[in-house]
Amino acid sequence: MSEKTSEVEEHSTRGAYVTGDEFTRDTNYIEDRITRDGAAGPNGEPGWPVEPGRYRLIAARACPWANRAVIVRRLLGLEDVISLGQPGPTHDARSWTFDLDPDGKDPVLGIERLQEAFFRRFPDYPRGITVPAMVDVPSGAVVTNNFPQITLDFSTEWTEFHRPGAPQLYPEHLREEIDQVNKRVFTEVNNGVYRCGFAGSQEAYEAAYTRLWNALDWLEERLTNQRYLVGDSITEADVRLFTTLARFDAVYHGHFKCNRNKLSEMPALWAYARDLFQTPGFGDTIDFVQIKQHYYMVHEDINPTKIVPVGPDLSGWLTDHGRESLGGSPFGDGTPPGPVKAGEEVAPGHGAG
Amino acid sequence: MSEKTSEVEEHSTRGAYVTGDEFTRDTNYIEDRITRDGAAGPNGEPGWPVEPGRYRLIAARACPWANRAVIVRRLLGLEDVISLGQPGPTHDARSWTFDLDPDGKDPVLGIERLQEAFFRRFPDYPRGITVPAMVDVPSGAVVTNNFPQITLDFSTEWTEFHRPGAPQLYPEHLREEIDQVNKRVFTEVNNGVYRCGFAGSQEAYEAAYTRLWNALDWLEERLTNQRYLVGDSITEADVRLFTTLARFDAVYHGHFKCNRNKLSEMPALWAYARDLFQTPGFGDTIDFVQIKQHYYMVHEDINPTKIVPVGPDLSGWLTDHGRESLGGSPFGDGTPPGPVKAGEEVAPGHGAG
Repeated sequence: MSEKTSEVEEHSTRGAYVTGDEFTRDTNYIEDRITRDGAAGPNGEPGWPVEPGRYRLIAARACPWANRAVIVRRLLGLEDVISLGQPGPTHDARSWTFDLDPDGKDPVLGIERLQEAFFRRFPDYPRGITVPAMVDVPSGAVVTNNFPQITLDFSTEWTEFHRPGAPQLYPEHLREEIDQVNKRVFTEVNNGVYRCGFAGSQEAYEAAYTRLWNALDWLEERLTNQRYLVGDSITEADVRLFTTLARFDAVYHGHFKCNRNKLSEMPALWAYARDLFQTPGFGDTIDFVQIKQHYYMVHEDINPTKIVPVGPDLSGWLTDHGRESLGGSPFGDGTPPGPVKAGEEVAPGHGAG
Repeated sequence: MSEKTSEVEEHSTRGAYVTGDEFTRDTNYIEDRITRDGAAGPNGEPGWPVEPGRYRLIAARACPWANRAVIVRRLLGLEDVISLGQPGPTHDARSWTFDLDPDGKDPVLGIERLQEAFFRRFPDYPRGITVPAMVDVPSGAVVTNNFPQITLDFSTEWTEFHRPGAPQLYPEHLREEIDQVNKRVFTEVNNGVYRCGFAGSQEAYEAAYTRLWNALDWLEERLTNQRYLVGDSITEADVRLFTTLARFDAVYHGHFKCNRNKLSEMPALWAYARDLFQTPGFGDTIDFVQIKQHYYMVHEDINPTKIVPVGPDLSGWLTDHGRESLGGSPFGDGTPPGPVKAGEEVAPGHGAG
């Protein structure tokens, strides 16, 4: 359909591009690490020391990649050592903005646009202004926006500050399997829905659709007889799949044309998603209103009217899932997190049901 | 959202407009009648005589309004007295075209664009070039495109040419109730989905969505304990609702944001729709490929990429519906129509399953 074959078009501040007809995500991020002793990463990534109160996680509720970090922070009980700033659901071509905060400024960083924190790190920062981002509060500069590493470092580097009963989301004996599952889920599902939605031609879209549904059928089968993706408890792998599933019927099904079935028509996946949604730390981070506003209002190239659908009916998220019969225990030897930190609750009417 | 408040914008050759924010259908048609003896209509509409072989029904498979006429023609067995011309699924701003026919011309009328038949009737015809249209073959001029009357006249004026066993789709003792149901179904459902899809503002869309779902909830309740909309057999009312339901999950759910639920999530309506779909004369007129191509490729204002979704999975249309237990008989004292006329079959792979 499209005649584009060589141009590169930026799609959003998420750092997402279309190269030729196929959507390709720019996976170059600021790869600094926040580590136990401030040591550099194994590939020479600059290291910053773990330090309570020093860093601020900037994470829009709308964004599935940011949502991961919000969930993991909460599961591990890091709310009091890593503060949370939340840009609004929509943004312009330049940046996510703090339009939901008083005076339109993040109350800790004092900035209107997340872009300012990137520029404080690199004045000519040329790539997408993305969330999640970890910001060094004293300098106001972004430390890292390398989202897959941020959550792993929460699990493995911030252990001194985990709450009592925090789960093992990335246990050593399961890392190989978690990494394998994460890789396939990332390329085929997390990113696969974007590949459908931003395809530059009918052919590229149809290829993307086939890839996505092959992967969802694999997951449907895998989850039919086991409660979680890897092992008997919640891991990083479940967090990463969940944030895409939570957005599936509300956004990806229609807006990105991922419409072979609704998630709610995939029995195992739908029960799995509801099981997680009803587990403290997952569903209580989901703001369906912000999620829908983000995608439908920001992507003017595929929804030029910017009209946000009223549907779907979300009450099903709170129905019985029956997954306990598969065994396993959500938190392993640990315990569920307590209530959502005051001031971080999803607004009334923005959740399910 | 939109700043439009007074302009009038043509949306398609269907004769559909947005006035202000709310979608308003232009319901001015060529209102001539084809009657038993050529008598004029009760309001002075010019009359043309019923005559086998004289008229050609132009009906794109994609269009729900045209689909009604194709179904009724087939249920009544009028295929050999009223021929059928089928424009392709897409059209430009001017007209439906015969791009699926050899040399891109209707083989009987010899025209490339339906517009030519309208101009042969009125050289300055100012309104939408719409299907269904009944064309007088000798002159090549459109007789009428007044779709609600076309099917009623098939039932009541062409009786001499009905097949043996043709059903009573508009029986006198039920007309009042059929008319009432048709009126609500037209304003709230048939046209209600367009009111959602072409809303000019978030507010207009939300109001349209509420009206649509109020009506669908009413239908869900009405059809829970009765097999057909009016009486114990198929009537004109069922034909009119069916052509919208057949397009619901494939198009209206996503493209028009009618997404509280899929049709397949409404138990009675979904079983009712499958019951009709599996009845000869209904499902065998449905070309899902052309339906999806039409909406997704013609409405560039709401789908600028023109990419056509691969989904939804349509195999459910052929599953058991269980509606026989509600009683009633589809054709009353009549019989089902025979096979689809040779040359009028839906293309392989374009139906359900």
